[in-house]
Amino acid sequence: MSEVIASYLIHDPSGNWEKKAEGIALGLTIGSWTNLPLLEQEQLKKHKGRVVSIAPLQDCDRVNQYLDKQVAQAIIKIAYPAANFSADLPAVLTTVFGKLSLDGKVKLIDLEFHGDLLQAFPGPRFGVEGIRKKLGVYDRPLVMSIFKGVIGRDIQYLTEQLREQALGGVDLVKDDEILFDNELTPFEKRIVEGKRVLDEVYEETRHRTLYAVNLTGRTFELKEKARRAAELGADALLFNVFAYGLDVLQALREDDEIGLPIMAHPAVSGASTPSEFYGFSYSLLLGKLLRITGADFSLFPSPYGSVALPFEDAVSISDELIHPSKQLKQSFPVPSAGIHPGMVPLLIRDFGIDSVINAGGGVHGHPDGAAGGGRAFRDAIDAVLNGQTLQEAAQQSESLKKAIELWGTVEVTS
Amino acid sequence: MSEVIASYLIHDPSGNWEKKAEGIALGLTIGSWTNLPLLEQEQLKKHKGRVVSIAPLQDCDRVNQYLDKQVAQAIIKIAYPAANFSADLPAVLTTVFGKLSLDGKVKLIDLEFHGDLLQAFPGPRFGVEGIRKKLGVYDRPLVMSIFKGVIGRDIQYLTEQLREQALGGVDLVKDDEILFDNELTPFEKRIVEGKRVLDEVYEETRHRTLYAVNLTGRTFELKEKARRAAELGADALLFNVFAYGLDVLQALREDDEIGLPIMAHPAVSGASTPSEFYGFSYSLLLGKLLRITGADFSLFPSPYGSVALPFEDAVSISDELIHPSKQLKQSFPVPSAGIHPGMVPLLIRDFGIDSVINAGGGVHGHPDGAAGGGRAFRDAIDAVLNGQTLQEAAQQSESLKKAIELWGTVEVTS
Repeated sequence: MSEVIASYLIHDPSGNWEKKAEGIALGLTIGSWTNLPLLEQEQLKKHKGRVVSIAPLQDCDRVNQYLDKQVAQAIIKIAYPAANFSADLPAVLTTVFGKLSLDGKVKLIDLEFHGDLLQAFPGPRFGVEGIRKKLGVYDRPLVMSIFKGVIGRDIQYLTEQLREQALGGVDLVKDDEILFDNELTPFEKRIVEGKRVLDEVYEETRHRTLYAVNLTGRTFELKEKARRAAELGADALLFNVFAYGLDVLQALREDDEIGLPIMAHPAVSGASTPSEFYGFSYSLLLGKLLRITGADFSLFPSPYGSVALPFEDAVSISDELIHPSKQLKQSFPVPSAGIHPGMVPLLIRDFGIDSVINAGGGVHGHPDGAAGGGRAFRDAIDAVLNGQTLQEAAQQSESLKKAIELWGTVEVTS
Repeated sequence: MSEVIASYLIHDPSGNWEKKAEGIALGLTIGSWTNLPLLEQEQLKKHKGRVVSIAPLQDCDRVNQYLDKQVAQAIIKIAYPAANFSADLPAVLTTVFGKLSLDGKVKLIDLEFHGDLLQAFPGPRFGVEGIRKKLGVYDRPLVMSIFKGVIGRDIQYLTEQLREQALGGVDLVKDDEILFDNELTPFEKRIVEGKRVLDEVYEETRHRTLYAVNLTGRTFELKEKARRAAELGADALLFNVFAYGLDVLQALREDDEIGLPIMAHPAVSGASTPSEFYGFSYSLLLGKLLRITGADFSLFPSPYGSVALPFEDAVSISDELIHPSKQLKQSFPVPSAGIHPGMVPLLIRDFGIDSVINAGGGVHGHPDGAAGGGRAFRDAIDAVLNGQTLQEAAQQSESLKKAIELWGTVEVTS
């Protein structure tokens, strides 16, 4: 039977988990059960929520003190029949976490889609394999860098910055997510001028860099705008999906007249992931849901920088994006923030080859500018894949040497 | 100058608020400042974020224990020039709370729109005044009841329930928010059959009840669907805005071919409001942002029931919806969950006349059925407005008497 199974982490003073779980399973589906006539029970059976499992966890003193009462914890799984909702994410989320999100300390930590249900979701159009094919890069992590300080700047400033970044050999450059449509650097101009610059760099270096332009504006204008981007030859779209909605991302992915890789930015998502009591798990929101709705890339805070996720959370996102699936292509994990070339061994250890190494300051802050930063990253990657230490490789790479002198290296202990 | 001023509640171990605030003001706008040449400073001045105020708060032992370190708290206000973003809510949210939502313990508690900026947002199409005009009810809170247990049921079951509710004299009936398009009770059929039943009741009783049909499905199909609803004579739309996006609500509000009252349901919003460290304040998300984007009604958990908000939070939502504004119509506050007729004095004290008294179980659970429940609410309201106690009024109202016997009354002490 098609159904979605939701896993919740619940903190509840009563600890009466059977009652709590049954209350959710009924309250979010048919409302009541035991008082119904047998005939109605028979009719409604296929709509009834089902308690799949209850796993009580150990109490936590720290939490009890904070809440000033004894609070039990459990992970509860409830199955919701697909017969209850239309096959779209807003309906799924409203069913499994609509009212319930308002009802005490409940965190939605996973959704499992069973039966035909997953077919309603497209997954990435390109995925890891498709993006690699576009770039002709198969055997190493990709490198991405980010425009910096572009608000209030003109198109010349942007294109110069783009050229510098591309010359360093990065595979991808993304817009700053806070760059919206504006008179100095309007969307279409960014695409056209960006393309021109990257074609020039390709002519000079035979290295292909893709530019992800920030798709912004009113929701109902996005499709048209993205189609126009495709017509103008845009490489990829950056999208602040959590300022819009996951279903909007899915619609952009599904539109064949757009047909561009989509890079999901985590902006605003921090409103509903970090609490231990409320919201969504990182792996669900930035991992599974972005993958099923069609992000080719998911950016998330790395576990290393100043804006850091807990290590297990960052890795759990990556796992959801990349684990093999018969139905869904893989999405690239893009652990971001606080990344410099000395971290490359660590990044490859923790996120593997099928990931994007993404840096802002770690590219632009290089003593030789963004081009030097990009080269340092590329050389660091080659070193790791060749079994060299960064120090060894730095003897052959001036860029890497300068990067290490500035930022140091992070020792990989296991 | 047009700008948006964001207020953040920040928990930070350093407590170095000047540095923190300046870091936000620069980091979310032009990136850096002091190292720029004077000419560039001049060019970028109008884009620079500005620290408006820093108000340190008292440390909290409970929080320090929970976080296992000394953490300072402050409310910081930052002004972001409107020149930096397009005049749409996704751009505003990404600017003021994009990356920042991921950067430590930061909660966005308010946004103030200055200059022309507010003109980008429509506010409610009808508002309190327009809805009252539709209903011809000017001098009392409205009463709303909610369909219950409708999943897996057929259209006859729904229309019978609707008829019962309308006969009790409620002003509004809303779909269950978890009722999506389905074979038994499809969207268009609910509208047509609902209208037929409510017209019948009007012929019989001269009382007009409006039915808010749940607008669901894929984002890019919503406008067409809502236009079709309007053509079919729908009274109002229920919308799970937080399963979609606030900008989608705004677009539905702005479409003149739709032109229907919109009732915003808080489903899924609990993922980003209840934490004291993260997310949005209730008053911002369920109050101000719903009002500016155009909800005529905002449902939120009342402070009384089992799914309850803290009292000040519930009242703060209501205040944002209803306070006088030259530019925006008022939205109806709809404190919901756990409401029975004995609470009417309390509801009127706390939420005033310009509110909607909304009940599910408190209508359907009445000994005389939903019609009795509706009558009990209406009679309780009349009592309060006439300066009677509910006990006094119950001597003239069999429905109210039975309701009070079943649920009791809540004493209003001030």
